[in-house]
Amino acid sequence: MDESRRPVVSIVMGSDSDFPKLEGCIRILKEFGVKSEARVISAHRSPELAHEFAAAAEERGVGVIIAAAGGAAHLAGVIASLTTLPVIGVPISSSAMQGVDALHSTVMMPPGVPVATVGIDASLNAAVLAVQILALADPDLRSALKAYKAKLAAGVQAKSQKIQKQLES
Amino acid sequence: MDESRRPVVSIVMGSDSDFPKLEGCIRILKEFGVKSEARVISAHRSPELAHEFAAAAEERGVGVIIAAAGGAAHLAGVIASLTTLPVIGVPISSSAMQGVDALHSTVMMPPGVPVATVGIDASLNAAVLAVQILALADPDLRSALKAYKAKLAAGVQAKSQKIQKQLES
Amino acid sequence: MDESRRPVVSIVMGSDSDFPKLEGCIRILKEFGVKSEARVISAHRSPELAHEFAAAAEERGVGVIIAAAGGAAHLAGVIASLTTLPVIGVPISSSAMQGVDALHSTVMMPPGVPVATVGIDASLNAAVLAVQILALADPDLRSALKAYKAKLAAGVQAKSQKIQKQLES
Amino acid sequence: MDESRRPVVSIVMGSDSDFPKLEGCIRILKEFGVKSEARVISAHRSPELAHEFAAAAEERGVGVIIAAAGGAAHLAGVIASLTTLPVIGVPISSSAMQGVDALHSTVMMPPGVPVATVGIDASLNAAVLAVQILALADPDLRSALKAYKAKLAAGVQAKSQKIQKQLES
Amino acid sequence: MDESRRPVVSIVMGSDSDFPKLEGCIRILKEFGVKSEARVISAHRSPELAHEFAAAAEERGVGVIIAAAGGAAHLAGVIASLTTLPVIGVPISSSAMQGVDALHSTVMMPPGVPVATVGIDASLNAAVLAVQILALADPDLRSALKAYKAKLAAGVQAKSQKIQKQLES
Amino acid sequence: MDESRRPVVSIVMGSDSDFPKLEGCIRILKEFGVKSEARVISAHRSPELAHEFAAAAEERGVGVIIAAAGGAAHLAGVIASLTTLPVIGVPISSSAMQGVDALHSTVMMPPGVPVATVGIDASLNAAVLAVQILALADPDLRSALKAYKAKLAAGVQAKSQKIQKQLES
Amino acid sequence: MDESRRPVVSIVMGSDSDFPKLEGCIRILKEFGVKSEARVISAHRSPELAHEFAAAAEERGVGVIIAAAGGAAHLAGVIASLTTLPVIGVPISSSAMQGVDALHSTVMMPPGVPVATVGIDASLNAAVLAVQILALADPDLRSALKAYKAKLAAGVQAKSQKIQKQLES
Amino acid sequence: MDESRRPVVSIVMGSDSDFPKLEGCIRILKEFGVKSEARVISAHRSPELAHEFAAAAEERGVGVIIAAAGGAAHLAGVIASLTTLPVIGVPISSSAMQGVDALHSTVMMPPGVPVATVGIDASLNAAVLAVQILALADPDLRSALKAYKAKLAAGVQAKSQKIQKQLES
Repeated sequence: MDESRRPVVSIVMGSDSDFPKLEGCIRILKEFGVKSEARVISAHRSPELAHEFAAAAEERGVGVIIAAAGGAAHLAGVIASLTTLPVIGVPISSSAMQGVDALHSTVMMPPGVPVATVGIDASLNAAVLAVQILALADPDLRSALKAYKAKLAAGVQAKSQKIQKQLES
Repeated sequence: MDESRRPVVSIVMGSDSDFPKLEGCIRILKEFGVKSEARVISAHRSPELAHEFAAAAEERGVGVIIAAAGGAAHLAGVIASLTTLPVIGVPISSSAMQGVDALHSTVMMPPGVPVATVGIDASLNAAVLAVQILALADPDLRSALKAYKAKLAAGVQAKSQKIQKQLES
Repeated sequence: MDESRRPVVSIVMGSDSDFPKLEGCIRILKEFGVKSEARVISAHRSPELAHEFAAAAEERGVGVIIAAAGGAAHLAGVIASLTTLPVIGVPISSSAMQGVDALHSTVMMPPGVPVATVGIDASLNAAVLAVQILALADPDLRSALKAYKAKLAAGVQAKSQKIQKQLES
Repeated sequence: MDESRRPVVSIVMGSDSDFPKLEGCIRILKEFGVKSEARVISAHRSPELAHEFAAAAEERGVGVIIAAAGGAAHLAGVIASLTTLPVIGVPISSSAMQGVDALHSTVMMPPGVPVATVGIDASLNAAVLAVQILALADPDLRSALKAYKAKLAAGVQAKSQKIQKQLES
Repeated sequence: MDESRRPVVSIVMGSDSDFPKLEGCIRILKEFGVKSEARVISAHRSPELAHEFAAAAEERGVGVIIAAAGGAAHLAGVIASLTTLPVIGVPISSSAMQGVDALHSTVMMPPGVPVATVGIDASLNAAVLAVQILALADPDLRSALKAYKAKLAAGVQAKSQKIQKQLES
Repeated sequence: MDESRRPVVSIVMGSDSDFPKLEGCIRILKEFGVKSEARVISAHRSPELAHEFAAAAEERGVGVIIAAAGGAAHLAGVIASLTTLPVIGVPISSSAMQGVDALHSTVMMPPGVPVATVGIDASLNAAVLAVQILALADPDLRSALKAYKAKLAAGVQAKSQKIQKQLES
Repeated sequence: MDESRRPVVSIVMGSDSDFPKLEGCIRILKEFGVKSEARVISAHRSPELAHEFAAAAEERGVGVIIAAAGGAAHLAGVIASLTTLPVIGVPISSSAMQGVDALHSTVMMPPGVPVATVGIDASLNAAVLAVQILALADPDLRSALKAYKAKLAAGVQAKSQKIQKQLES
Repeated sequence: MDESRRPVVSIVMGSDSDFPKLEGCIRILKEFGVKSEARVISAHRSPELAHEFAAAAEERGVGVIIAAAGGAAHLAGVIASLTTLPVIGVPISSSAMQGVDALHSTVMMPPGVPVATVGIDASLNAAVLAVQILALADPDLRSALKAYKAKLAAGVQAKSQKIQKQLES
């Protein structure tokens, strides 16, 4: 692969049915100009693939891994067991348990092998967290994050004014 | 290893602190004369070990694997992803969540990769289930299971009489 | 019944309304060429039926029983109390509790009487587990399981490539 | 058995370890002069016993059955499936799940087979409920219940005065 | 009111929006020929009404009260506090908590004041339980209950045959 | 702002998507003639706004603050940390957890900083509670509350009669 | 009662065993110089008492009621149904459910009858909330609240310095 | 402060009573030679402190913030709302809810403001995650992480051998 296109953030999902829930994640990384890739890797149905991916990620230049899975969501943990890169886990609400099972399976990791867990289906936040991590060594990203934060606040204020007007009329 | 000592049931636990909770499991297998082994394997802290163990189990003559773990209990699932042997999962109540996290992480597996889950801390039942599975091809074990079942019923009856006497006196 | 059509796996469900959730189970057993039967038996509304069924199953040549039920799902446990065959329990999400009640009622069995529990609504996995159990004494089934596992992995890889292409375009 | 000693309420418990939690139940029935018996019957370890007990209860003159069990507490449901007598279920907090599993397993019964469920470990209330049921056809019991209710209220008032004094001093 | 039309079972619901969930209850009581009435009484919005109703029920000839409510479902408990008649509670799944809140609020009563709780939305079972209670002093009702139980079993068997045929074809 | 239009109750919501769930709140305050305002303020996306709002509320003449938010609902707590006015929290069911997360995040406040929490999505009750608080120093509001309470009871009675008629016909 | 000793805050608890958990509540009210009283009133065991208490509270000069109860905690709701005074509910962790049942029973009130719920066992916060409510019409209390808030912040800072020193040494 | 002693990781806790649960965190950072500081900051009792701390952290050279809190654990979220540094949240099991409330309050953050959440009481993992993040720009830390990972695996193997010996003897 051409060096300039090497992904810095690698997004893996346990099933292609999780893909629509990762739209926010992919969009945010694009907005921040962070190169990313997306793959389907099942900790349980394609364990060798998970193994190879995790073992090779650092060498391929990946800095942060985002892993999204539902049910007994082992994907983030399995990858975290095979790399020292920071792994962000996104519990997906795909089972009858509405993501509570995935949250427990992702966040309650044993001592020594953390997964940085975000909220159920919160793939957008996984992307923001990845950018925050990368920004530690990248002043441009940090500036972009500050602009993003300001935009969030401005958005809230705009919505507030709209609602206040609606009520007055 | 001497052929006659080859384990038929392999017990793996995610941490040596789970060992006391496996006492019932080991005792039952001994009572039924089923050869077993016990190992500490962490899906997260020793993933290579888990991989090697699961990949080699069938060839080593193991018929059933019992995997016990707490928290984000991935051990049973990780092993099940790497073997076609039946894997019995025992959720252990070692975290603040009292085993509910381990239950969810063990039982909610994705399509194609089942874990035969027993109750929280129910390692004794994991052993009985393993014997039931092995008994399908072993008439002696099946007879032993029937005797065991009769003993359970007799035990209940004995306790009932004791309590009835206690109340009458 | 003609010997060659005797079922090896018996599927019982607590209500005919659970039938659609057992489609995956029936399909997988057919794919593996494992003879099966399906019956409606309610532990609570037809207890005698449950009793007769469980008591006769072994003699009828059944090797593994799959029991699916929702709510206070006692079906798997009641059958397990009356046979020494391995019983696989499938908690069904039919009540307001979304299957959490059925999971608790199926998995938390007392010492001596295990139910091999799979995930909520995971009847497909019940079938795979049944095949894994039968494969212990059937080399052809074991080969078929390995092929199935390879197909699962290949399926994941194909989906991954599709998503990667989608993102590049 | 001598007619005059025939039990009107039959208390069954899934394990003799539940016995201490039934103390309040036994005491209340004694206070109201309602004849009772207590037995250990496991729905899972002694299913035949459960079957025989439930089938014979009505003929033995039993009017109400109280069934207490923990974990996947099927005892009350199994008995209710085999009798038309009212069955009161007491979920016991004996597992890591603190009785929540027993509550779900006892209360979420399918249409047609109710269990009158009381609170976790609330065996005393099971006894009061049994007395309320029997009192429908027994004016003396009903008077006794009214006296009991008045005593409860008086007890609260006495405790209130004690605390008020304590605070004033 | 004309003596012959006096209700024996009184059904109260916390809100008229719960009415559709009581259809099964009303139908079953009609099938068994048990006279009933249905009222809307809110423990919280019409406490005086609840008070008057509970205090007068016994004198009006009511034998069993069925109380259905959702959310912080106090209705059954409030009525039970004011009568010695048996009170059956039906937790209704009307809030975001899907009836779990109503279950807790109905079943976890303090010592001395039981509510006979059935499953979430299980109003049909409340009716069956009421009939079982009334049948203690009514041989006709008891016969009818036995016929009902036989019909339940027959219904299961019929459905089983239908499914078996469907699979064979 | 013109003195006579100064809001006495200030409603803040974490997101404009919560607005439809506040309709009942706004309507009740209007019915009681209590001046109110509504704003969008996110504890997390617009923390400065939250800070300024909370710090200035008392001086602006606000007496009670109603704060509604979903997920990790910090809004009520953050505002309560910055004012000594009573803060009413409304947990909103906007995440996969159906408001249980918001309930926990709103109600489990540390010693010294209470939030007066109402039920999930219960914004109408937040308004009634605000009126009850303001009525302590406003006899007209107290009279209005009594009329409101009487209307609630009358409404229940009307619905009861409607259902009774429906059943008789 | 002598006018000057009339309680402004009335604390009621469902059982005298809850009394130790109300210590913080009583202490805080004393610190703020707010007159209070404490009573044991059970919504279920002494319903008439609850009724009389709630109906008379306003006339007795009570401004805010704090109601603490465990299990199916109806006390706060029952009182709220009979008064228009603000009622603060304190869920108590006295059952096997650790207060989750009491939280649900206290907070999920129907439209029109709010209970201002604080955290499980958080009686101290109930007192602070009561003071905040009374302070709306009492400038002295408001000043005292501001001093209290400042003291809380100072306390945190002092503890922080202690820990920083501990780590440096 | 002397430049060479500037902390790179800042640990904040909501209460000094959480301090014992942070021991693992502090030890791990020391082992990796990462400079850290520890402070008590309450989001609710000392909001100004939280505000100042978060606003100044980046300028003070802090790279990663670890925030530990129990109950309605807003600390991590409040800090994350005021900085673009990565914030790691540690839910603490200090309330009757055993940390489930803190988990929900920490992880379910709104879009745009992530908290990297680790397991309940898992402060050790928070430290490892912080090191993983810092290691992205520090090859020495990355080597140290690899050695740490190898040590974890070796530790598991040693414990496994000890248990195997124990069983053989």
